[in-house]
Amino acid sequence: MTGSTAAERPRQRGPRGGDADTRGDILAAAAEAFATQGYGAASLRGIARQAGVDPALVRHYFGSKSELFVEAMRPLRADDAAVTALLATPAEQRGEAFIRLALSLWDDPVIGARLRAILASIAAVDDVGAAFAQVMMRDVLLRMVRPDHAEDRAAACATQIAGLAMGRYVLRVPSLADAPVERLAAIYGPTFQRYLDGDLDLSD
Amino acid sequence: MTGSTAAERPRQRGPRGGDADTRGDILAAAAEAFATQGYGAASLRGIARQAGVDPALVRHYFGSKSELFVEAMRPLRADDAAVTALLATPAEQRGEAFIRLALSLWDDPVIGARLRAILASIAAVDDVGAAFAQVMMRDVLLRMVRPDHAEDRAAACATQIAGLAMGRYVLRVPSLADAPVERLAAIYGPTFQRYLDGDLDLSD
Repeated sequence: MTGSTAAERPRQRGPRGGDADTRGDILAAAAEAFATQGYGAASLRGIARQAGVDPALVRHYFGSKSELFVEAMRPLRADDAAVTALLATPAEQRGEAFIRLALSLWDDPVIGARLRAILASIAAVDDVGAAFAQVMMRDVLLRMVRPDHAEDRAAACATQIAGLAMGRYVLRVPSLADAPVERLAAIYGPTFQRYLDGDLDLSD
Repeated sequence: MTGSTAAERPRQRGPRGGDADTRGDILAAAAEAFATQGYGAASLRGIARQAGVDPALVRHYFGSKSELFVEAMRPLRADDAAVTALLATPAEQRGEAFIRLALSLWDDPVIGARLRAILASIAAVDDVGAAFAQVMMRDVLLRMVRPDHAEDRAAACATQIAGLAMGRYVLRVPSLADAPVERLAAIYGPTFQRYLDGDLDLSD
């Protein structure tokens, strides 16, 4: 499992400062390619061509294909305003705030369309799914949870949100796909609240 | 979505009575083929050959490929002793009984090995995942839940158990994959208990 994404590692050389647009262009081309072609069929070369850059630059910024996948497809980044707002929410209200944020993100058609590509890639390629889970836990969930049993708490949140995303947006189970946000917040909010900040009744 | 599996529908003709072994042989060959080759690559013809029967007999018993997949890969059937025991458990203890049963099933290497094939097929083929979820809800979850908001309850259980299975057995997130059953029962038991039998705070 990767300890940090390539995009965050310091690099010894290469463009710095004016590279935000280039990184953004590569990420946009990658998200499009992964969502439409799938992880296996998308190539770093094709993504580079679409972004109008040299393939070496893609590797320079993002490292491996699986690292680029995680960076391009993740629905939240550590410095997103939504994450900052979530961390500013009082601990006793974060469960419902978290489910509301997740649903509002996925109801965005672009982000929602990525879910199937993510699920398919996770199923097809071992380390992509593990890397994806690890980055989302590190950047969002582990920062939200009570310090005791933090890994158990973050993992529990990840399992519940991943299962809900699969049921509502991929399999489209009727009682999930058709439910208004209020209904899902009432059902799932208390679960996240307990995982984030409640008593887990663990002996150690 | 299928209303009932082909295997349960009455058929107008064909062998009856002595056909339990044939059905079992077909299911065993199908489970092996789907788990090793994946849903897309496995063929009804190849499964029939492996089971030593005519391909027409596979269709006769199980209908479509996706119906055969669900029958062959499902971890529980409505008349399994484990389901009967679960239904005999007092409602206020079913949450923990359910998580313990699920973990004990998946810790079986054969059943555990099917999980990745199921996940990959769900990701690749729309109706397989929906049919799988629908059968497991009908045969197990909808029979376990409190009657009010039964669909919401069964779906909530399905999302949590699917996410936990993915994290523990497929992605192998360390805090899930390495956790003893007791620890997961303490964390997830109360969630299932509330989904199965608790107050969901829904207004309708």
